[in-house]
Amino acid sequence: MRIDILTLFPEMFEGPLTQSIMKRAVDKGLVEMHFHDIRDYTLDKHKKVDDYAFGGGAGMVMTIQPIADLIDKLKAERDYDQVIYMTPDGQRFEQRIANTLSLCGNIMILCGHYKGVDQRIRDHYVTMEISIGDYVLTGGELAAAVVSDAIIRLIPGVMSDETSALTDSFQDGLLSPPVYTRPADYNGWKVPDVLLSGNQAMIDEWREQQAYERTKQIRPDLLED
Amino acid sequence: MRIDILTLFPEMFEGPLTQSIMKRAVDKGLVEMHFHDIRDYTLDKHKKVDDYAFGGGAGMVMTIQPIADLIDKLKAERDYDQVIYMTPDGQRFEQRIANTLSLCGNIMILCGHYKGVDQRIRDHYVTMEISIGDYVLTGGELAAAVVSDAIIRLIPGVMSDETSALTDSFQDGLLSPPVYTRPADYNGWKVPDVLLSGNQAMIDEWREQQAYERTKQIRPDLLED
Repeated sequence: MRIDILTLFPEMFEGPLTQSIMKRAVDKGLVEMHFHDIRDYTLDKHKKVDDYAFGGGAGMVMTIQPIADLIDKLKAERDYDQVIYMTPDGQRFEQRIANTLSLCGNIMILCGHYKGVDQRIRDHYVTMEISIGDYVLTGGELAAAVVSDAIIRLIPGVMSDETSALTDSFQDGLLSPPVYTRPADYNGWKVPDVLLSGNQAMIDEWREQQAYERTKQIRPDLLED
Repeated sequence: MRIDILTLFPEMFEGPLTQSIMKRAVDKGLVEMHFHDIRDYTLDKHKKVDDYAFGGGAGMVMTIQPIADLIDKLKAERDYDQVIYMTPDGQRFEQRIANTLSLCGNIMILCGHYKGVDQRIRDHYVTMEISIGDYVLTGGELAAAVVSDAIIRLIPGVMSDETSALTDSFQDGLLSPPVYTRPADYNGWKVPDVLLSGNQAMIDEWREQQAYERTKQIRPDLLED
Protein backbone atom coordinates (compact mmCIF):
# COMPACT_ATOMS: atom_id res chain seq x y z
CA MET A 1 0.00 0.00 0.00
CA ARG A 2 1.14 3.53 -0.81
CA ILE A 3 -0.09 6.67 0.96
CA ASP A 4 0.74 10.12 -0.44
CA ILE A 5 0.18 12.99 1.96
CA LEU A 6 -0.21 16.51 0.54
CA THR A 7 0.42 19.17 3.15
CA LEU A 8 1.83 22.61 3.94
CA PHE A 9 3.50 21.16 7.06
CA PRO A 10 5.31 17.89 6.24
CA GLU A 11 7.38 18.20 9.45
CA MET A 12 4.21 17.58 11.47
CA PHE A 13 4.37 13.92 10.46
CA GLU A 14 7.86 13.33 11.79
CA GLY A 15 6.81 11.85 15.12
CA PRO A 16 3.46 10.13 14.68
CA LEU A 17 4.11 8.04 11.59
CA THR A 18 7.77 7.26 12.12
CA GLN A 19 7.53 5.47 15.47
CA SER A 20 6.32 2.23 16.96
CA ILE A 21 4.09 0.05 14.78
CA MET A 22 4.01 2.55 11.91
CA LYS A 23 7.79 2.46 11.67
CA ARG A 24 7.71 -1.34 11.62
CA ALA A 25 5.15 -1.31 8.78
CA VAL A 26 7.37 0.95 6.69
CA ASP A 27 10.55 -0.97 7.54
CA LYS A 28 8.91 -4.26 6.56
CA GLY A 29 7.91 -2.74 3.21
CA LEU A 30 4.20 -3.24 3.94
CA VAL A 31 3.42 0.41 3.38
CA GLU A 32 5.10 3.35 1.63
CA MET A 33 4.50 6.83 2.99
CA HIS A 34 5.30 9.87 0.83
CA PHE A 35 5.00 13.43 2.08
CA HIS A 36 4.65 16.31 -0.39
CA ASP A 37 5.04 19.96 0.51
CA ILE A 38 2.31 21.83 -1.38
CA ARG A 39 4.42 24.99 -1.20
CA ASP A 40 7.01 23.40 -3.52
CA TYR A 41 4.42 23.49 -6.32
CA THR A 42 3.24 27.09 -6.20
CA LEU A 43 4.00 29.24 -9.24
CA ASP A 44 3.48 32.41 -7.21
CA LYS A 45 6.69 34.43 -7.13
CA HIS A 46 6.33 35.04 -3.38
CA LYS A 47 5.65 31.31 -2.80
CA LYS A 48 2.17 32.18 -1.57
CA VAL A 49 -0.22 29.22 -1.16
CA ASP A 50 -3.24 31.00 0.34
CA ASP A 51 -5.32 34.12 -0.21
CA TYR A 52 -8.32 35.99 1.19
CA ALA A 53 -11.77 34.44 0.82
CA PHE A 54 -14.06 35.85 -1.86
CA GLY A 55 -16.96 37.51 -0.11
CA GLY A 56 -14.85 38.51 2.90
CA GLY A 57 -14.62 37.05 6.38
CA ALA A 58 -11.83 35.86 8.68
CA GLY A 59 -9.35 33.14 7.71
CA MET A 60 -7.30 32.37 4.60
CA VAL A 61 -8.17 29.89 1.85
CA MET A 62 -5.66 27.56 0.18
CA THR A 63 -5.32 28.38 -3.54
CA ILE A 64 -6.07 25.95 -6.36
CA GLN A 65 -2.95 26.02 -8.50
CA PRO A 66 -0.28 24.33 -6.33
CA ILE A 67 -2.68 21.62 -5.14
CA ALA A 68 -4.06 20.97 -8.64
CA ASP A 69 -0.57 20.73 -10.15
CA LEU A 70 0.63 18.37 -7.41
CA ILE A 71 -2.39 16.06 -7.75
CA ASP A 72 -2.07 16.06 -11.56
CA LYS A 73 1.60 15.12 -11.28
CA LEU A 74 0.92 12.21 -8.89
CA LYS A 75 -2.01 10.94 -10.96
CA ALA A 76 0.19 10.93 -14.07
CA GLU A 77 2.63 8.64 -12.23
CA ARG A 78 0.13 6.03 -10.99
CA ASP A 79 -3.55 5.32 -10.39
CA TYR A 80 -5.13 6.23 -7.07
CA ASP A 81 -8.09 4.50 -5.47
CA GLN A 82 -9.08 7.63 -3.58
CA VAL A 83 -8.14 11.30 -3.26
CA ILE A 84 -9.18 12.00 0.31
CA TYR A 85 -9.64 15.48 1.76
CA MET A 86 -9.50 15.85 5.54
CA THR A 87 -12.17 18.34 6.64
CA PRO A 88 -14.50 18.74 9.63
CA ASP A 89 -17.47 18.74 7.22
CA GLY A 90 -16.66 15.39 5.64
CA GLN A 91 -18.26 12.03 6.44
CA ARG A 92 -17.38 10.82 9.89
CA PHE A 93 -14.45 8.39 10.00
CA GLU A 94 -15.23 5.07 11.64
CA GLN A 95 -13.79 1.57 11.83
CA ARG A 96 -15.79 0.37 8.83
CA ILE A 97 -14.12 3.02 6.63
CA ALA A 98 -10.68 2.13 8.01
CA ASN A 99 -11.34 -1.53 7.12
CA THR A 100 -12.30 -0.58 3.54
CA LEU A 101 -9.40 1.82 2.99
CA SER A 102 -6.89 -0.75 4.30
CA LEU A 103 -7.64 -2.78 1.15
CA CYS A 104 -6.67 0.05 -1.24
CA GLY A 105 -3.49 0.08 -3.33
CA ASN A 106 -2.71 3.81 -3.55
CA ILE A 107 -4.40 6.67 -1.77
CA MET A 108 -3.76 10.41 -1.59
CA ILE A 109 -4.63 12.41 1.53
CA LEU A 110 -4.92 16.19 1.19
CA CYS A 111 -4.58 18.16 4.42
CA GLY A 112 -6.55 21.40 4.68
CA HIS A 113 -5.19 24.28 6.74
CA TYR A 114 -6.54 27.72 7.65
CA LYS A 115 -10.17 27.93 6.41
CA GLY A 116 -9.55 24.99 4.05
CA VAL A 117 -8.95 24.57 0.33
CA ASP A 118 -10.75 26.39 -2.48
CA GLN A 119 -14.06 24.60 -3.07
CA ARG A 120 -13.14 23.91 -6.72
CA ILE A 121 -10.41 21.49 -5.60
CA ARG A 122 -13.09 19.58 -3.71
CA ASP A 123 -15.48 19.65 -6.68
CA HIS A 124 -12.97 18.53 -9.32
CA TYR A 125 -10.29 16.41 -7.61
CA VAL A 126 -11.42 15.03 -4.28
CA THR A 127 -13.22 11.66 -4.29
CA MET A 128 -13.80 11.26 -0.54
CA GLU A 129 -14.12 13.79 2.30
CA ILE A 130 -13.39 12.53 5.80
CA SER A 131 -13.77 14.08 9.25
CA ILE A 132 -12.20 12.30 12.22
CA GLY A 133 -14.79 13.80 14.58
CA ASP A 134 -17.00 16.76 15.48
CA TYR A 135 -14.26 19.15 16.52
CA VAL A 136 -11.93 21.56 14.78
CA LEU A 137 -8.16 21.18 14.58
CA THR A 138 -5.42 23.57 13.52
CA GLY A 139 -5.16 21.68 10.25
CA GLY A 140 -5.78 18.38 8.53
CA GLU A 141 -2.32 17.03 9.36
CA LEU A 142 -3.18 15.31 12.64
CA ALA A 143 -6.39 14.02 11.07
CA ALA A 144 -4.42 12.53 8.16
CA ALA A 145 -2.04 10.90 10.64
CA VAL A 146 -5.01 9.42 12.52
CA VAL A 147 -6.54 7.97 9.34
CA SER A 148 -3.17 6.61 8.19
CA ASP A 149 -2.54 4.97 11.57
CA ALA A 150 -6.01 3.39 11.71
CA ILE A 151 -5.59 1.99 8.19
CA ILE A 152 -1.99 0.83 8.37
CA ARG A 153 -2.40 -1.23 11.54
CA LEU A 154 -5.01 -3.33 9.72
CA ILE A 155 -2.68 -4.37 6.90
CA PRO A 156 -1.80 -8.05 7.43
CA GLY A 157 1.66 -8.44 8.96
CA VAL A 158 1.82 -4.97 10.54
CA MET A 159 0.69 -5.94 14.02
CA SER A 160 2.70 -8.65 15.71
CA ASP A 161 -0.44 -10.40 16.91
CA GLU A 162 -3.19 -10.23 14.37
CA THR A 163 -5.89 -11.62 16.56
CA SER A 164 -5.32 -8.57 18.74
CA ALA A 165 -6.84 -6.20 16.15
CA LEU A 166 -9.90 -8.43 15.83
CA THR A 167 -10.72 -8.09 19.52
CA ASP A 168 -10.47 -4.26 19.44
CA SER A 169 -13.38 -2.04 20.33
CA PHE A 170 -15.85 -1.54 17.42
CA GLN A 171 -14.83 -4.60 15.39
CA ASP A 172 -17.80 -6.45 16.90
CA GLY A 173 -19.93 -3.37 17.53
CA LEU A 174 -19.18 -3.36 21.27
CA LEU A 175 -16.65 -1.55 23.44
CA SER A 176 -13.88 -3.67 24.92
CA PRO A 177 -14.23 -5.32 28.34
CA PRO A 178 -11.88 -4.13 31.12
CA VAL A 179 -8.37 -5.59 31.16
CA TYR A 180 -6.11 -6.42 34.11
CA THR A 181 -2.56 -7.61 34.51
CA ARG A 182 -0.20 -8.50 37.39
CA PRO A 183 -0.11 -7.99 40.30
CA ALA A 184 -3.47 -9.52 41.23
CA ASP A 185 -3.50 -7.29 44.32
CA TYR A 186 -2.01 -3.79 44.11
CA ASN A 187 -2.23 -1.98 47.45
CA GLY A 188 -5.54 -3.68 48.09
CA TRP A 189 -6.98 -3.05 44.62
CA LYS A 190 -7.91 -6.52 43.39
CA VAL A 191 -8.47 -8.19 40.05
CA PRO A 192 -11.98 -9.71 39.66
CA ASP A 193 -11.90 -13.35 40.87
CA VAL A 194 -13.31 -14.77 37.66
CA LEU A 195 -10.19 -13.71 35.71
CA LEU A 196 -8.02 -15.77 38.06
CA SER A 197 -10.35 -18.79 37.97
CA GLY A 198 -8.74 -20.54 35.00
CA ASN A 199 -12.26 -21.34 33.74
CA GLN A 200 -12.12 -20.02 30.17
CA ALA A 201 -15.85 -20.40 29.49
CA MET A 202 -16.69 -18.31 32.57
CA ILE A 203 -14.04 -15.74 31.65
CA ASP A 204 -15.39 -15.40 28.11
CA GLU A 205 -18.92 -15.03 29.42
CA TRP A 206 -17.83 -12.39 31.96
CA ARG A 207 -16.00 -10.43 29.26
CA GLU A 208 -18.94 -10.52 26.90
CA GLN A 209 -21.25 -9.32 29.64
CA GLN A 210 -18.84 -6.53 30.68
CA ALA A 211 -18.46 -5.40 27.06
CA TYR A 212 -22.23 -5.27 26.72
CA GLU A 213 -22.76 -3.43 30.03
CA ARG A 214 -20.04 -0.92 29.24
CA THR A 215 -21.46 -0.23 25.81
CA LYS A 216 -24.95 0.17 27.23
CA GLN A 217 -23.70 2.63 29.82
CA ILE A 218 -21.23 4.74 27.81
CA ARG A 219 -22.37 4.38 24.21
CA PRO A 220 -25.98 3.13 24.03
CA ASP A 221 -26.12 4.47 20.45
CA LEU A 222 -23.87 1.59 19.33
CA LEU A 223 -26.50 -0.94 20.42
CA GLU A 224 -29.29 0.72 18.43
CA ASP A 225 -27.90 -0.02 14.96
CA MET B 1 -2.46 26.35 30.75
CA ARG B 2 -0.28 23.32 31.39
CA ILE B 3 -0.70 19.93 29.70
CA ASP B 4 1.21 16.88 30.96
CA ILE B 5 1.27 13.96 28.60
CA LEU B 6 2.06 10.48 29.99
CA THR B 7 3.18 8.07 27.29
CA LEU B 8 5.45 5.18 26.34
CA PHE B 9 6.33 7.01 23.11
CA PRO B 10 7.19 10.67 23.81
CA GLU B 11 8.96 10.94 20.42
CA MET B 12 5.59 10.59 18.69
CA PHE B 13 4.77 14.15 19.74
CA GLU B 14 7.80 15.71 18.10
CA GLY B 15 6.09 16.78 14.90
CA PRO B 16 2.42 17.48 15.66
CA LEU B 17 2.72 19.69 18.71
CA THR B 18 5.93 21.48 17.87
CA GLN B 19 4.89 23.09 14.58
CA SER B 20 2.68 25.83 13.26
CA ILE B 21 0.10 27.31 15.64
CA MET B 22 1.01 24.93 18.47
CA LYS B 23 4.60 26.11 18.37
CA ARG B 24 3.45 29.72 18.50
CA ALA B 25 1.26 28.99 21.55
CA VAL B 26 4.22 27.48 23.39
CA ASP B 27 6.63 30.24 22.28
CA LYS B 28 4.20 32.92 23.46
CA GLY B 29 3.99 31.22 26.87
CA LEU B 30 0.25 30.62 26.48
CA VAL B 31 0.62 26.89 27.05
CA GLU B 32 3.22 24.60 28.61
CA MET B 33 3.54 21.07 27.26
CA HIS B 34 5.36 18.43 29.30
CA PHE B 35 6.00 14.91 28.03
CA HIS B 36 6.72 12.09 30.48
CA ASP B 37 8.05 8.69 29.50
CA ILE B 38 6.15 6.14 31.59
CA ARG B 39 9.05 3.71 31.19
CA ASP B 40 11.27 6.03 33.28
CA TYR B 41 9.10 5.23 36.31
CA THR B 42 9.00 1.43 36.25
CA LEU B 43 10.62 -0.35 39.18
CA ASP B 44 10.86 -3.57 37.17
CA LYS B 45 14.49 -4.59 36.78
CA HIS B 46 14.00 -5.31 33.07
CA LYS B 47 12.22 -1.93 32.59
CA LYS B 48 9.04 -3.80 31.68
CA VAL B 49 5.87 -1.67 31.52
CA ASP B 50 3.36 -4.25 30.26
CA ASP B 51 2.33 -7.82 30.98
CA TYR B 52 -0.13 -10.50 29.82
CA ALA B 53 -3.83 -10.01 30.51
CA PHE B 54 -5.36 -12.00 33.36
CA GLY B 55 -7.80 -14.45 31.86
CA GLY B 56 -5.78 -14.82 28.64
CA GLY B 57 -6.28 -13.41 25.19
CA ALA B 58 -4.19 -11.49 22.66
CA GLY B 59 -2.51 -8.17 23.46
CA MET B 60 -0.51 -6.79 26.36
CA VAL B 61 -1.80 -4.64 29.23
CA MET B 62 0.08 -1.65 30.70
CA THR B 63 0.96 -2.30 34.36
CA ILE B 64 -0.19 -0.15 37.26
CA GLN B 65 3.01 0.71 39.13
CA PRO B 66 4.86 3.06 36.74
CA ILE B 67 1.69 4.95 35.81
CA ALA B 68 0.50 5.22 39.43
CA ASP B 69 3.89 6.48 40.61
CA LEU B 70 4.11 9.06 37.81
CA ILE B 71 0.60 10.39 38.44
CA ASP B 72 1.25 10.53 42.22
CA LYS B 73 4.44 12.49 41.62
CA LEU B 74 2.74 15.05 39.34
CA LYS B 75 -0.22 15.44 41.68
CA ALA B 76 2.15 16.12 44.57
CA GLU B 77 3.64 18.99 42.56
CA ARG B 78 0.40 20.78 41.58
CA ASP B 79 -3.37 20.38 41.33
CA TYR B 80 -4.90 19.01 38.17
CA ASP B 81 -8.37 19.80 36.86
CA GLN B 82 -8.58 16.49 35.03
CA VAL B 83 -6.67 13.24 34.58
CA ILE B 84 -7.77 12.23 31.10
CA TYR B 85 -7.35 8.74 29.65
CA MET B 86 -7.45 8.38 25.88
CA THR B 87 -9.38 5.22 24.98
CA PRO B 88 -11.76 4.12 22.21
CA ASP B 89 -14.39 3.31 24.87
CA GLY B 90 -14.42 6.79 26.42
CA GLN B 91 -17.00 9.51 25.82
CA ARG B 92 -16.81 10.88 22.32
CA PHE B 93 -14.73 14.04 21.98
CA GLU B 94 -16.59 16.97 20.46
CA GLN B 95 -16.22 20.73 20.17
CA ARG B 96 -18.21 21.35 23.37
CA ILE B 97 -15.66 19.31 25.38
CA ALA B 98 -12.76 21.15 23.69
CA ASN B 99 -14.35 24.46 24.70
CA THR B 100 -14.68 23.33 28.33
CA LEU B 101 -11.16 21.88 28.58
CA SER B 102 -9.64 25.05 27.08
CA LEU B 103 -10.65 26.81 30.32
CA CYS B 104 -8.68 24.42 32.57
CA GLY B 105 -5.45 25.32 34.37
CA ASN B 106 -3.61 21.98 34.47
CA ILE B 107 -4.57 18.73 32.81
CA MET B 108 -2.91 15.34 32.50
CA ILE B 109 -3.43 13.12 29.48
CA LEU B 110 -2.58 9.43 29.78
CA CYS B 111 -1.99 7.58 26.51
CA GLY B 112 -2.95 3.93 26.38
CA HIS B 113 -1.02 1.53 24.18
CA TYR B 114 -1.40 -2.17 23.34
CA LYS B 115 -4.68 -3.40 24.90
CA GLY B 116 -4.72 -0.37 27.22
CA VAL B 117 -3.94 0.24 30.89
CA ASP B 118 -4.88 -1.97 33.83
CA GLN B 119 -8.49 -1.19 34.74
CA ARG B 120 -7.48 -0.23 38.28
CA ILE B 121 -5.67 2.87 36.96
CA ARG B 122 -8.96 3.90 35.36
CA ASP B 123 -10.93 3.18 38.52
CA HIS B 124 -8.63 5.00 40.94
CA TYR B 125 -6.84 7.78 39.02
CA VAL B 126 -8.62 8.74 35.84
CA THR B 127 -11.31 11.46 36.05
CA MET B 128 -12.33 11.62 32.38
CA GLU B 129 -12.15 9.07 29.53
CA ILE B 130 -12.14 10.43 26.01
CA SER B 131 -12.38 8.80 22.59
CA ILE B 132 -11.66 10.92 19.51
CA GLY B 133 -13.90 8.70 17.36
CA ASP B 134 -15.24 5.22 16.64
CA TYR B 135 -12.04 3.71 15.33
CA VAL B 136 -8.96 2.09 16.81
CA LEU B 137 -5.45 3.53 16.67
CA THR B 138 -2.05 2.05 17.45
CA GLY B 139 -2.07 3.98 20.71
CA GLY B 140 -3.45 6.99 22.52
CA GLU B 141 -0.61 9.27 21.41
CA LEU B 142 -2.23 10.61 18.23
CA ALA B 143 -5.52 10.95 20.09
CA ALA B 144 -3.81 12.98 22.84
CA ALA B 145 -2.23 15.19 20.18
CA VAL B 146 -5.66 15.74 18.60
CA VAL B 147 -7.24 16.72 21.92
CA SER B 148 -4.33 19.02 22.78
CA ASP B 149 -4.50 20.72 19.38
CA ALA B 150 -8.27 21.24 19.57
CA ILE B 151 -7.95 22.74 23.06
CA ILE B 152 -4.87 24.89 22.56
CA ARG B 153 -6.14 26.69 19.47
CA LEU B 154 -9.09 27.97 21.55
CA ILE B 155 -6.90 29.68 24.16
CA PRO B 156 -7.17 33.45 23.60
CA GLY B 157 -4.12 34.80 21.79
CA VAL B 158 -3.12 31.52 20.15
CA MET B 159 -4.80 32.07 16.79
CA SER B 160 -3.82 35.24 14.97
CA ASP B 161 -7.42 36.00 14.08
CA GLU B 162 -9.79 35.06 16.85
CA THR B 163 -12.96 35.59 14.91
CA SER B 164 -11.73 32.80 12.66
CA ALA B 165 -12.26 30.14 15.36
CA LEU B 166 -15.78 31.38 15.98
CA THR B 167 -16.81 30.76 12.37
CA ASP B 168 -15.46 27.18 12.38
CA SER B 169 -17.66 24.19 11.74
CA PHE B 170 -19.62 23.04 14.86
CA GLN B 171 -19.35 26.31 16.82
CA ASP B 172 -22.85 27.21 15.58
CA GLY B 173 -24.04 23.63 15.11
CA LEU B 174 -23.66 23.76 11.32
CA LEU B 175 -20.93 22.72 8.92
CA SER B 176 -19.01 25.54 7.22
CA PRO B 177 -20.14 26.97 3.87
CA PRO B 178 -17.82 26.47 0.86
CA VAL B 179 -14.88 28.88 0.53
CA TYR B 180 -13.24 30.29 -2.60
CA THR B 181 -10.22 32.45 -3.31
CA ARG B 182 -8.50 33.92 -6.37
CA PRO B 183 -8.52 33.44 -9.28
CA ALA B 184 -12.26 33.92 -9.89
CA ASP B 185 -11.92 31.74 -12.99
CA TYR B 186 -9.48 28.81 -12.96
CA ASN B 187 -9.45 26.98 -16.29
CA GLY B 188 -13.16 27.65 -16.63
CA TRP B 189 -14.04 26.68 -13.03
CA LYS B 190 -15.81 29.75 -11.69
CA VAL B 191 -16.53 31.22 -8.27
CA PRO B 192 -20.28 31.68 -7.57
CA ASP B 193 -21.36 35.15 -8.73
CA VAL B 194 -22.81 36.15 -5.38
CA LEU B 195 -19.38 36.08 -3.73
CA LEU B 196 -18.11 38.64 -6.26
CA SER B 197 -21.19 40.88 -5.93
CA GLY B 198 -19.90 43.04 -3.08
CA ASN B 199 -23.37 42.82 -1.49
CA GLN B 200 -22.52 41.62 2.03
CA ALA B 201 -26.12 40.93 3.04
CA MET B 202 -26.61 38.66 0.02
CA ILE B 203 -23.26 36.97 0.67
CA ASP B 204 -24.14 36.29 4.33
CA GLU B 205 -27.52 34.90 3.32
CA TRP B 206 -25.94 32.66 0.66
CA ARG B 207 -23.38 31.34 3.16
CA GLU B 208 -26.01 30.60 5.77
CA GLN B 209 -28.10 28.76 3.25
CA GLN B 210 -25.10 26.77 1.96
CA ALA B 211 -24.08 25.85 5.51
CA TYR B 212 -27.60 24.63 6.19
CA GLU B 213 -27.88 22.68 2.90
CA ARG B 214 -24.49 21.09 3.41
CA THR B 215 -25.32 20.05 6.97
CA LYS B 216 -28.68 18.64 5.85
CA GLN B 217 -27.01 16.60 3.12
CA ILE B 218 -23.86 15.34 4.88
CA ARG B 219 -24.74 15.40 8.59
CA PRO B 220 -28.50 15.54 9.10
CA ASP B 221 -27.94 14.29 12.67
CA LEU B 222 -26.52 17.70 13.61
CA LEU B 223 -29.86 19.36 12.77
CA GLU B 224 -31.85 16.99 14.98
CA ASP B 225 -30.45 18.16 18.31
